[in-house]
This record gives sequence, structure tokens and C-alpha cells, in this order.
Amino acid sequence: MINYPNKKKHRERKIVSTANRGMNFENMINQTNEFYLNNNIAVIHKKPIPIQIVKVDYKQRSAAKIVEAYYKLPSTTDYNGLYKGRYIDFEAKETKNKTSFPIKNIHEHQVTHLEQCQNHGGIAFIIIYFSMLDRIFFLDASYVSKYYKRSKTSRKSITLKEIESNGYEITEGYRKPVDYLKVIDEHYIK
Amino acid sequence: MINYPNKKKHRERKIVSTANRGMNFENMINQTNEFYLNNNIAVIHKKPIPIQIVKVDYKQRSAAKIVEAYYKLPSTTDYNGLYKGRYIDFEAKETKNKTSFPIKNIHEHQVTHLEQCQNHGGIAFIIIYFSMLDRIFFLDASYVSKYYKRSKTSRKSITLKEIESNGYEITEGYRKPVDYLKVIDEHYIK
Repeated sequence: MINYPNKKKHRERKIVSTANRGMNFENMINQTNEFYLNNNIAVIHKKPIPIQIVKVDYKQRSAAKIVEAYYKLPSTTDYNGLYKGRYIDFEAKETKNKTSFPIKNIHEHQVTHLEQCQNHGGIAFIIIYFSMLDRIFFLDASYVSKYYKRSKTSRKSITLKEIESNGYEITEGYRKPVDYLKVIDEHYIK
Repeated sequence: MINYPNKKKHRERKIVSTANRGMNFENMINQTNEFYLNNNIAVIHKKPIPIQIVKVDYKQRSAAKIVEAYYKLPSTTDYNGLYKGRYIDFEAKETKNKTSFPIKNIHEHQVTHLEQCQNHGGIAFIIIYFSMLDRIFFLDASYVSKYYKRSKTSRKSITLKEIESNGYEITEGYRKPVDYLKVIDEHYIK
């Protein structure tokens, strides 16, 4: 009885889970970047959320209060920066799906932006967090483009199997919940 | 009478001014970056303004309205991106001053950020627009650090003479109001 599928999955998830993995995914990435920055490893920051500001109240001079604003669609990705002289650019996405990553999570202009970064010599990719499996993958922008194109005519998602065979699983490092630079060290920078 | 100082200055400014130079400085930089992007020269974007969102009204589901938010101090610079495989990072500042650039225009964490970028192999600098002189300069981050340190104990500004001798004047290119990549081509990338 011990080895029936559900039980096994559940056990595995518990084993890989840690205090870090309990965090919000964005916080996990931010904490990793903070570790990289504080330890002089890399300079990678999250960009602010793009906002269209419509009305600002300047009554209190000390702190202008924005009273009307709207979210704008981002024209690039959430994260970029610099590692060992190389330009780094990525988007981080979370899914509750257990078997595939729905392509609709990535905007077309983000795919274009990742392609542009790659064309100009940058390292561009997405990080996908399967929260129900507690597994995190690094997928190169070239595959993002490939599957994005495919979604126009057939499958609207990237299967976990495709991600497993074309991407790299990201492991957790000490005080680095999402140690994606390890993948870059192993596969991009010799 | 023709050559008395005010008259001369006024004439000079008129001569170098163009339709582009009449724009807001930020727009000039943005238009330049757009030109670089559309012509597949470089991928350099302005980061969104950092905002602390306090209250959002979700009444209309189609467009969440932010009803209370505040400006946050930026932790990095306004612009970054990628050119010929190199990481590019800069801050753009305008001054009405005619003889020097007041250091208080640059925050300490921005100086630190530019230093970090340089230490990791990026090309980091500031662009200074002397609006009354209609002259634009490129100043490497190493000089920004140097003069920032000096401002702690003596002069609180960088003189135009210092900028002229340590920086590079940026000229206007065809549809590139602030053609700073020309400086990078000539002095950073062989």
C-alpha cells in the first residue's frame, strides 16, 4: 500500500518542500536576486510594475498621492540584469497545472522581447514554477518561441514532458530559493 | 554689438536647436531607444516608475483602478538593456544650470548600482542634458563615483569643464535625438 501513486506523489512533494518553497514565487526569486546582489555574484533586479498614472494629489507636499492609475500591459519581462559580463533577461511564471504550462501566461510582446535579447547576445529564458508539484524549471527563450508559435495552430500549452526534456530543473541553494544562475553556469557560461 | 555675451549665447542655442531638441529630454531618450529597437540595433528600455500601491478598486472588473499609491525612491537607474552582447545601464538627468551639474540629482543607491554594473562587466554611465546650453554629455560611472565621493567633503557639483574633459559630448543622429551608442562604439566597443 505504501507505494500507490497518490501517496508517493504526496510524500515526494513533502520531502522537497522547505521553508523557502512555502513562500510566494515572486518572493523566492526576489530573495534569490538579493542573495546574488549582496554576495556580489550578479546584479539582477525586478522591474517595477508598469502603471499609467492619471491623477496625482499634490495637497500634501511631502508625499504626492496618486489617486487614479491603471495597470499597463508590460512591454518587456519582469527581470533583467548582469552576470559575469552577460546580459540576463527572464520572465517568471507560476502555474497550478500539474501536467503542462499554458502558453497564455506569456504575452506575445514578451516572447518578442526574449527573442530580441537572444539575438543581441543576451541570455534569455523563462522560469516556470509548477506550484502543485513544487518543481521549478528553466526554459531557454528559443523553446518559448517555438512553443509559442505552435500554440497559434495546435497545442496551447507546453507539456511537462517537453519542459523536462528541453529545460533544466532548478534546484534550491543555501539561501537561494531559485538558484537559476547554477543553470547558467552549467549550460551557458563555460 | 552683435557679439555681446547674451546675444551670442542665444544665437548659438538657436543654431544647434532642432525640432528634436525641443522635446522633453525623457522623450528624446525614449525616441532614440525606439529607433535602436525598431532598427534592430539594441534592446534598451526605460524601466517603469516604482510605485507603492496601497489601494485598488476592483469594482469594474475590466479595469482595476488604483486609488491610492505613492512614488517610491528608485533602487536602480532608469534605463538598461543590451547592445552588441554588452549590458548597458544608465541614468539620464537634465539640469537648467549652465556651468555645473548638481550631484544631488543622483541618489546614492543609483551611484552604487552603476558601480555594481561596472564591476560585473557592464557599460554604466549617466547622460546629462544642460537644457539652457542645449548640450548633452555622456559621463562614465567611474567619474560619477569619483565626483559623488568628492561631494561628501567638498564641491557639491561636477563642473561643466570637468564633464567636458572627462565625458563625451553626444551628438544628434538622424531620428536619434540622443545618439549615445555612438559614444559606446567609439570608446567602449572596438
